[in-house]
Amino acid sequence: MKELEARIQADGRVLGEDILKVDSFLNHQIDPQLMQAMGNEFARLFAGQGITKVITVEASGIAPAVMAGLALNVPVVFARKSKSRILSDDAYTADVYSYTKQTSNQIRIDKRFLSATDHVLLIDDFLANGQALLGLKALADAAGATIVGAGIVIEKSFQPGRQAATEAGLSNIQSLARIAAFENGQVVFAAEEK
Amino acid sequence: MKELEARIQADGRVLGEDILKVDSFLNHQIDPQLMQAMGNEFARLFAGQGITKVITVEASGIAPAVMAGLALNVPVVFARKSKSRILSDDAYTADVYSYTKQTSNQIRIDKRFLSATDHVLLIDDFLANGQALLGLKALADAAGATIVGAGIVIEKSFQPGRQAATEAGLSNIQSLARIAAFENGQVVFAAEEK
Repeated sequence: MKELEARIQADGRVLGEDILKVDSFLNHQIDPQLMQAMGNEFARLFAGQGITKVITVEASGIAPAVMAGLALNVPVVFARKSKSRILSDDAYTADVYSYTKQTSNQIRIDKRFLSATDHVLLIDDFLANGQALLGLKALADAAGATIVGAGIVIEKSFQPGRQAATEAGLSNIQSLARIAAFENGQVVFAAEEK
Repeated sequence: MKELEARIQADGRVLGEDILKVDSFLNHQIDPQLMQAMGNEFARLFAGQGITKVITVEASGIAPAVMAGLALNVPVVFARKSKSRILSDDAYTADVYSYTKQTSNQIRIDKRFLSATDHVLLIDDFLANGQALLGLKALADAAGATIVGAGIVIEKSFQPGRQAATEAGLSNIQSLARIAAFENGQVVFAAEEK
């Protein structure tokens, strides 16, 4: 998505080997117009696939997921994160390890909001090591829901997330921006597939 | 806002003395169309007041805040919550006590995203005891920003939040739904002011 790539080039900050800070428009300060454009793009990429629900993880996934849900005209559910591992008959749960923070969180979705009849689109802001995406997949699998695909805002394709998700059986992963490398503090995008 | 009141009556669940669960459309599962209608209503209520930024707290405030920002065509910043009290030269911080969870969190906004030239609209999903709203006000005050007002999705007007916020100097608090009481498990709305 050219508009997103241009914004990353203009306002993203490369820190160290593999960190891209986009807190000026994506995950701390948010540009609502860009979010809406991204939601519309997700709806275009996943059109006609019978999606009944969008699921994501708090907090950074919420804005793009809500805009995707708006464009697709379906409800959005955001999984709650918790440090404590509370087992509950009322919720689907999964463990998610964060390489950035080096901590593990439980994510959970109330069973009332995900069912075997759902066709879900997974949305997240980043795909790097793939842990959050695998956690969302685990929640959908636990509900017996059908996963239509995954929509990612920014993929770091030099990290193993896509491969891990694909090996776990997740197909149709669509990323709005794919970063092939950071070179001299600059972002190099992967060539578009089509 | 009649559409919101109808949704609360249809899908809200009253638990105990003073808890209203709206996790089927507001703070776990989200109805994006309703969020957009609420964002448009906030934009109408605060039109022509020179707002430059919307600020809220993760996670439940993000969806209504982003829709308000979309309608007002201004950036949105969500304050991050943290259990640990990290002092930083880079962020404005405030402490927020949650009566529901009986714990205290620090909320923080990076100094790059809030300044003395900003005219900010505070947005939150609930106004009950007012602690989150006072925390947002403290962040804006620390930045020297001008607070235009506060937009609340659901106010429990039988709790002291509005009075606490007013006494702290916050004016122009607009709530889309004001709950006067819970009676026999039913929601009773406050009469509209005009």
